[in-house]
Amino acid sequence: MRDQVRILEVKKTILEDNDADAAVLKEHLKEEGTFYINVMSSPGAGKTSTLLKVTGILQEDLKVGVMEADIDSDVDAVTMEEHGIPSVQLHTCGMCHLDADMSRQGLRLIGSQNFDVIFLENVGNLVCPAEFDTGAHMNLVILSVPEGDDKPLKYPLMFEKADAVVINKIDAAPAFDFSLDRVQKHIHARHAGIPIFPVSARTGEGIEALAEFIFREYISYEGGCGK
Amino acid sequence: MRDQVRILEVKKTILEDNDADAAVLKEHLKEEGTFYINVMSSPGAGKTSTLLKVTGILQEDLKVGVMEADIDSDVDAVTMEEHGIPSVQLHTCGMCHLDADMSRQGLRLIGSQNFDVIFLENVGNLVCPAEFDTGAHMNLVILSVPEGDDKPLKYPLMFEKADAVVINKIDAAPAFDFSLDRVQKHIHARHAGIPIFPVSARTGEGIEALAEFIFREYISYEGGCGK
Repeated sequence: MRDQVRILEVKKTILEDNDADAAVLKEHLKEEGTFYINVMSSPGAGKTSTLLKVTGILQEDLKVGVMEADIDSDVDAVTMEEHGIPSVQLHTCGMCHLDADMSRQGLRLIGSQNFDVIFLENVGNLVCPAEFDTGAHMNLVILSVPEGDDKPLKYPLMFEKADAVVINKIDAAPAFDFSLDRVQKHIHARHAGIPIFPVSARTGEGIEALAEFIFREYISYEGGCGK
Repeated sequence: MRDQVRILEVKKTILEDNDADAAVLKEHLKEEGTFYINVMSSPGAGKTSTLLKVTGILQEDLKVGVMEADIDSDVDAVTMEEHGIPSVQLHTCGMCHLDADMSRQGLRLIGSQNFDVIFLENVGNLVCPAEFDTGAHMNLVILSVPEGDDKPLKYPLMFEKADAVVINKIDAAPAFDFSLDRVQKHIHARHAGIPIFPVSARTGEGIEALAEFIFREYISYEGGCGK
């Protein structure tokens, strides 16, 4: 059947390269001692709720801030502030991703030098954010159970760029035809060996392990301890 | 709390306008008598499974074809062909949306003149596809229950551009904090009065009503009957 499907390769337009800019930002943050984590997912995969739980744990030892990127609304930054997590809202005004320059503007606004760890909640989108280096030291991708275990096949670049993958909403697994084995196989086919964290931001399952992983990565980045 | 959130307006880059091109394509399809429907959603909201069910019903009276757009894989076109639905796969090679020219190339490949209705399954993305007119006569947006009922607030353009919204996976509603009333209110705040179809592509609930709606829109577009 596969041989019979006709395929058209639509020509890719050239995307501006912001890699050099991202490298400068990364270095600047290193000098500040700020560990910068870019969180990406589809809309509704649970970026905000996962970050709320994880920052709650990390805040015990580290100064943590969150930059919420959204096309228009400010509901996520409001949620963060309500939970006592320092936050700024970045409006992309219709744009589907953040690049290094946009993230630099956000980091200035929040005052990155005052934090050990800054999370960027990128625009909900499994495509475009993968193409633009934000200058982050770690790319965290969240995939949720209801989206289906075939998504690493369909959004390959996102999983190639990821440094770790969170599988969220595992409490809802019984309602969906989702196999953890299958998704792990698909993720590792795209990016061999990267860590995968099954969690439920709703019940809290798996969150502790994810927070520990981020803490260890911060320590290893920093070669020391918090500010 | 809302007053305390700092907001940064990141400057929007200029997107190429392909509206004129889309208008020409739309007119060309009208001359052919082909009704062209652009289906958009987040990754994993259920575009393919909803289309499988809906085309199964529409095929009883109409010649229906499906163009599957994907960044890389061909799993969806294979699925369609396996179910006896004429289909082509469009590879966007990393691009996050289709524009009018890309959809024209796909329509040539599938041979749009031989069909009454052509569905385009756009790239799974709630942001970029809303900005590019594909030349379609109807924009159908699918939102799924697990994504959350706040999504019309966060992806406003997609719901403004929609001519109808499908709420999929309603069979999973008990497992999620999702209110049909709330989502309808949010959708209608973005786009007053547009039709909303709660369905489950898995159980088939609501699919008949959606197919009837599309059939009526086709008849009204055509001012007549099938080829």
